[in-house]
Amino acid sequence: MESPIVSVLGGGQLGRMLALAGIPLGLEFRFLDPSADATAGALGSLVVGDLGDRDALAEIARGATVVTYEWEGVPADGARAAAALAPVRPDPRALDVAQDRLDEKQTFERLGIDRARFQPVDDRSGLDEAVRATGLPAILKTRRGGYDGKGQRRLDQAADVAAVDGWDDPSIVEAVVLFDRELSVLAVRGLDGDTRCYPLVENEHRGGILRVSRAPAPELTADLQAAGEAIAAKLLDDLDYVGVLAVELFEHDGKLLANEIAPRVHNSGHWTIEGADTSQFENHLRAVLGWPLGSTAPRGHSAMVNCIGTMPERDAVLRIPGAHLHDYEKSPRAGRKLGHITVTAGTAEERDERLAEVVQIVP
Amino acid sequence: MESPIVSVLGGGQLGRMLALAGIPLGLEFRFLDPSADATAGALGSLVVGDLGDRDALAEIARGATVVTYEWEGVPADGARAAAALAPVRPDPRALDVAQDRLDEKQTFERLGIDRARFQPVDDRSGLDEAVRATGLPAILKTRRGGYDGKGQRRLDQAADVAAVDGWDDPSIVEAVVLFDRELSVLAVRGLDGDTRCYPLVENEHRGGILRVSRAPAPELTADLQAAGEAIAAKLLDDLDYVGVLAVELFEHDGKLLANEIAPRVHNSGHWTIEGADTSQFENHLRAVLGWPLGSTAPRGHSAMVNCIGTMPERDAVLRIPGAHLHDYEKSPRAGRKLGHITVTAGTAEERDERLAEVVQIVP
Repeated sequence: MESPIVSVLGGGQLGRMLALAGIPLGLEFRFLDPSADATAGALGSLVVGDLGDRDALAEIARGATVVTYEWEGVPADGARAAAALAPVRPDPRALDVAQDRLDEKQTFERLGIDRARFQPVDDRSGLDEAVRATGLPAILKTRRGGYDGKGQRRLDQAADVAAVDGWDDPSIVEAVVLFDRELSVLAVRGLDGDTRCYPLVENEHRGGILRVSRAPAPELTADLQAAGEAIAAKLLDDLDYVGVLAVELFEHDGKLLANEIAPRVHNSGHWTIEGADTSQFENHLRAVLGWPLGSTAPRGHSAMVNCIGTMPERDAVLRIPGAHLHDYEKSPRAGRKLGHITVTAGTAEERDERLAEVVQIVP
Repeated sequence: MESPIVSVLGGGQLGRMLALAGIPLGLEFRFLDPSADATAGALGSLVVGDLGDRDALAEIARGATVVTYEWEGVPADGARAAAALAPVRPDPRALDVAQDRLDEKQTFERLGIDRARFQPVDDRSGLDEAVRATGLPAILKTRRGGYDGKGQRRLDQAADVAAVDGWDDPSIVEAVVLFDRELSVLAVRGLDGDTRCYPLVENEHRGGILRVSRAPAPELTADLQAAGEAIAAKLLDDLDYVGVLAVELFEHDGKLLANEIAPRVHNSGHWTIEGADTSQFENHLRAVLGWPLGSTAPRGHSAMVNCIGTMPERDAVLRIPGAHLHDYEKSPRAGRKLGHITVTAGTAEERDERLAEVVQIVP
């Protein structure tokens, strides 16, 4: 029997982990990535090319069972072109929304999902009026191209607004929201509409980059979980989404505000490899292939620590009970995600103890 | 930083699962296998050649961090030749013992490990005397080359002995032992001698091939676990073993008899991928690389079902909660191990319910 072929747009660590989850299921993988060193290349065939390159897209899509993506920056037009040759899931409409902060926030608004106040800013001349509507402090964000905190500028007072110069990209201004903590919800929707959510995750960012996730989020109540699931379900249904979707959330006084979506497997879901009945990677593959979804129930308590810029001493990680090392085999560079470590434990207390050990050795 | 390179003699499903465990640790793999279709080839570079071929062995060993094997039939002399170019772990002495049933049983005897009565049989002429010493029923087994029940002949009564003709291979006769059940113990020993055991596994064979394993074995007592660990420890220390060793056992009236060893990761340890803190595959790699060993503690209760000759209907497997499908992507053939399914659960009862569902759909 021929193996189903999954073609992935992007060949980074997310593609690599998709393949590690899919190979045991009997799948074969192809990746399209601009870099010949793409880390997923070790696990399938690699086409080196721009993610918007029509010839490269045709090469990877032709004969594929399904085309999916591991990066929300994939040009939506390219993904649509590939759809002439093989099903593309999730539908590229999700890329449009995720790539344009205005579209994204307006989608939240249209679906009645709570979010921060926001205003479009077409260019510098519209900034003052927009800030009057959102109030200060606020953040000026380009509509397109921002990632891990890039393309953003904080405006605390009127002087900060006045100092903005040479900002010509279409943008939004968004009020800074008070929040108690950052959470995310990972959900998966099958081809038949079957929808399942993982327990909400608590995330700590530093310098705009995710550092630590804990799952289930500490003191997660059934009400909070239900609120997160309702947000995810509205988005999944509206986008007729197939695959894993991540929604980043702020929690304040027990209420959830949606911040942004990622139409792909997500860094805050890496803990599911060891910490859930079915990993986000396996469930994404099951979904895009039209297969039955797997249980999203957690297995005990987990935490994930990102390794940014440099990897910790390997043996020190391996000595921590319940620690699982994931080395993406990428060359070190400041700010680059090189790997992650997941700790699993039977209780939240034990998880936090093991997490503290990991945090101590991760630079 | 250069990735450590693990060269594996043999490229079947065990090699494949070693690579799936090792790639997240930042390892690269090479395989030597006689078949260009070897299933592990998708996960590393594949040298096609005989496992005893000196040139092929040199090609795979040169520059490797360590050489290991995934089949106990690897010619021990070839493994020794490779040791001139890279460390070979476990030491090929373990291959000598595992490949010769007489050496194996004499090792048990020398170490004071309980086993069935046995007698060497050099050729047909020595059979009658050997049977007088062991008694009947007994099994005549070739010293070398037996695997999954091949090369064996059962002798229930004197007429069966008289009927043996043309049996010229050096063999042993072994008394049939009464047993309540079959168990196995998987143990791992590090380069520094650190030794850890997984919980004993209960195994059901049919037609000489493993069908179902349950772990921890039902009604596993601390005494029985300790007895299994003592057997494994004697063997590991005697062989100065580095890596994972499996010992197949019979239990009768609460006592353990050793049956045979497999100096490699083992089919009855596949459940550890999802069912233990550290899988047998990861711990084997940690051991042969001289890295710290991982916890062998179980995560709940697990069972594994082999898929022999044909794979079950995929969606039916995926619909069972806690079921994990492992498709080796091998072409179907009668009696061939094509994949396995592991179910995990919080309790032994739930494990057995899920196992019953799997058994129903596996042909």
